[in-house]
Amino acid sequence: MSAMPGTDAGQAIGITRQMARAALAYSDAVLPPQALTVAKQCILDWFAVTLPGSREHCAVLLAEELEAYGAGPCSVIGRTSRLSPRDAALANGTASHALDYDDVNRTMAGHPSVAIFPAVLAIAESEKRTGREALVAFVAGYEMASVVGGLVGPSHYARGYHATGTVGAIGATVAAGLLLGLDETAMDHAIGLAATQSAGLKAMFGSMAKPLHAGKAAANGVLAARLAMRGFTGQPGVLEADQGFIGALSDEPVRVPAMPVPGTEITSTLFKYHAACYFTHSTIDCLTALRVRTGLTPDAIATVELHVGPAHLQACQIGDPRSGLEAKFSLTHAAALALCGRDTAALETFTDAAIDDPQVAATRERVIVHGDAAAGGAIFARIRTVAGECHDVAHDTGIVNTDLVAQGARIDAKYLSLAVPVVGAAAALRLKAVIAQLEDLPTVDALLREISGEDG
Amino acid sequence: MSAMPGTDAGQAIGITRQMARAALAYSDAVLPPQALTVAKQCILDWFAVTLPGSREHCAVLLAEELEAYGAGPCSVIGRTSRLSPRDAALANGTASHALDYDDVNRTMAGHPSVAIFPAVLAIAESEKRTGREALVAFVAGYEMASVVGGLVGPSHYARGYHATGTVGAIGATVAAGLLLGLDETAMDHAIGLAATQSAGLKAMFGSMAKPLHAGKAAANGVLAARLAMRGFTGQPGVLEADQGFIGALSDEPVRVPAMPVPGTEITSTLFKYHAACYFTHSTIDCLTALRVRTGLTPDAIATVELHVGPAHLQACQIGDPRSGLEAKFSLTHAAALALCGRDTAALETFTDAAIDDPQVAATRERVIVHGDAAAGGAIFARIRTVAGECHDVAHDTGIVNTDLVAQGARIDAKYLSLAVPVVGAAAALRLKAVIAQLEDLPTVDALLREISGEDG
Repeated sequence: MSAMPGTDAGQAIGITRQMARAALAYSDAVLPPQALTVAKQCILDWFAVTLPGSREHCAVLLAEELEAYGAGPCSVIGRTSRLSPRDAALANGTASHALDYDDVNRTMAGHPSVAIFPAVLAIAESEKRTGREALVAFVAGYEMASVVGGLVGPSHYARGYHATGTVGAIGATVAAGLLLGLDETAMDHAIGLAATQSAGLKAMFGSMAKPLHAGKAAANGVLAARLAMRGFTGQPGVLEADQGFIGALSDEPVRVPAMPVPGTEITSTLFKYHAACYFTHSTIDCLTALRVRTGLTPDAIATVELHVGPAHLQACQIGDPRSGLEAKFSLTHAAALALCGRDTAALETFTDAAIDDPQVAATRERVIVHGDAAAGGAIFARIRTVAGECHDVAHDTGIVNTDLVAQGARIDAKYLSLAVPVVGAAAALRLKAVIAQLEDLPTVDALLREISGEDG
Repeated sequence: MSAMPGTDAGQAIGITRQMARAALAYSDAVLPPQALTVAKQCILDWFAVTLPGSREHCAVLLAEELEAYGAGPCSVIGRTSRLSPRDAALANGTASHALDYDDVNRTMAGHPSVAIFPAVLAIAESEKRTGREALVAFVAGYEMASVVGGLVGPSHYARGYHATGTVGAIGATVAAGLLLGLDETAMDHAIGLAATQSAGLKAMFGSMAKPLHAGKAAANGVLAARLAMRGFTGQPGVLEADQGFIGALSDEPVRVPAMPVPGTEITSTLFKYHAACYFTHSTIDCLTALRVRTGLTPDAIATVELHVGPAHLQACQIGDPRSGLEAKFSLTHAAALALCGRDTAALETFTDAAIDDPQVAATRERVIVHGDAAAGGAIFARIRTVAGECHDVAHDTGIVNTDLVAQGARIDAKYLSLAVPVVGAAAALRLKAVIAQLEDLPTVDALLREISGEDG
């Protein structure tokens, strides 16, 4: 292992250890109020997507497999069963990512909440932790996942990894480890145990395996932290180790990261308002704006040329989707939906049946996607009409909303539209009220009382 | 996904699909008798290392964690508990690799039996499969793990991956999938579900996490196959997919492999007769031979220079081990043990207490290890004595024993020396007799009856 310059009175401590130390400092930190606000927005949004997600085929198949043998103290969202912390994290993590409608963080380059919050929920429920402890652990896991995402950099994604499964497992471990009371050394080992279990391939996008990555990240995090609590050890310093996590899973050099000021990463959360991969959002938003502004109808469109960055293209290159799940990872389909005025916030728009929408299919065939290394997170679209007009539009949805009140209102609306059909309006509103006062709850049980196994 | 030239009447089928098809052909194949002989040697050797392995600290800690919440139909070696197929595979896989005394395959570049056999055992026990079905599934999983090991090539290991955890998971899935009756399409998806869960970093060598890799491989294989049986899907073609398993976890180009003639890879198994990493074996064997031949005593040695290939060096570069587990991954320590005449077959030689052996420690300090890219699997050693003599020795333990009778006798001796102290002579002999007739057993229960939870 490389010795790293530390901040500890001249003593060299490794990156992993620095991260463990930084995370442990969260236990007593007074996080800025906006970090707690956004954390609760993440949790409300998590329930919004998990409640209907728990009814998706992949979530049901997995839950049935786990229930065939499992039992334990932890709630499974949308079901009456109870499982071990690890299996509840696996089931809930998978359910929460089943719709691919959950939040995103650009530094982590993945989906933080679906990897981390199920681990928090499972450990907090089984260990009777307070709402505040759960909230702080969630933020700490989130921030550390962002640190690791920064360390493995763009080459991690470019190699084919789904950071939600890989980096997310480390975030889940840090959060679970805090709730289990790990000390600095045990946390270092727990991070190693998570890193050495971390997996998830982008080649699985558009299939049931993608949500499984979130579930596995949460479950691997729970197992890593619980094993470390028992005295199970790996090698310390997994991030910076020769051929360690950074060396094996990325092509980046090992460099010492700056630890974020607590609360900065979580306040950079991007929320989804379309039920598809985040990399379709810029396309949907700008083509929808164009359609509304110009009154352009699908019939009037000759060609649509999209210019997108490599990350968009790699994640969403399914040109001719055959299922609702594949449609979530198709830029051509996203463009067609926007130009046809379909409701991309609605789950029904991404069902298998909806694929056959003839107007959308016909529009999709007129969309050409070009990769453009210079595009970054933005997209550029040129629409030519059959009448010979040309419209150029560009957009970047990767910009954080700093108006937390407006963001909260938008998440509230998303939550109610998704949760009410599953649990009914009364339970949905009670859960929303509980999340709003999460930092004051003596245990997290109240989060689950209203909704587990309800079929309202 | 790239289209691959197939053998199917000109129709292109992918590598993953070809592998699924090849594995399914094992179900009715008459394997050559030497393949079944070696398979049973692998299984006897697996029990030899798992019985004492189940008492190792890592195995006990993990089993206690799994038992805290788990229950199911599957036996846990050395314990009275029963767990789900997945958790039994996790516990037994970890126990079987805890001593790092289990078999090796050079094509797979890892430990096949500890990743695959626990999955076979768990599914065969829970699904009441016959001994012959278990044996055939084990061989098929083993052979396919070797195919994948060949595909990810040396760069997989060089990047930092422990193939036992990564490639091993795919072997475990293939074996479990056969026992669960998956068809070709489901097997393709199961391989994808395994590949996207596959993990394991060499940076964890010398810690409890290394055996955990074997357990996770087996457990990931069980989960992948059982989910695929239920209709859970990934994307097909994970091996050859753009940024798929080969692309992400290795630096090799995707190429179509030749499927092995059934039984060829398993007959290339290398068995361990020293309780340390296989990369210490050449060093131990040739220095022991030198010591026996010349009567050289540790006092008479001035310096030992070892020249070893990069793989040996990367895996066993712990120069100054601090624990028995680290000692298993130290070429300097291995050389010292051989030159001091310590019994490297004995578990006691690799305990924490044994690290402090002053003669071994003093000898270890005189050993210098040089990496030599040209060395391949062989090692070269130059010993200079205080009297000014120079001895040159070279060795390659990576050569398969083709005398299966002699190999069987050596494994029998290893088995008895390891199993008898754990379960007693009578039970050890009964289990040995059961394995000898494994292909005739109506169920695999007889494999477990004698030993689970016995403490003889």
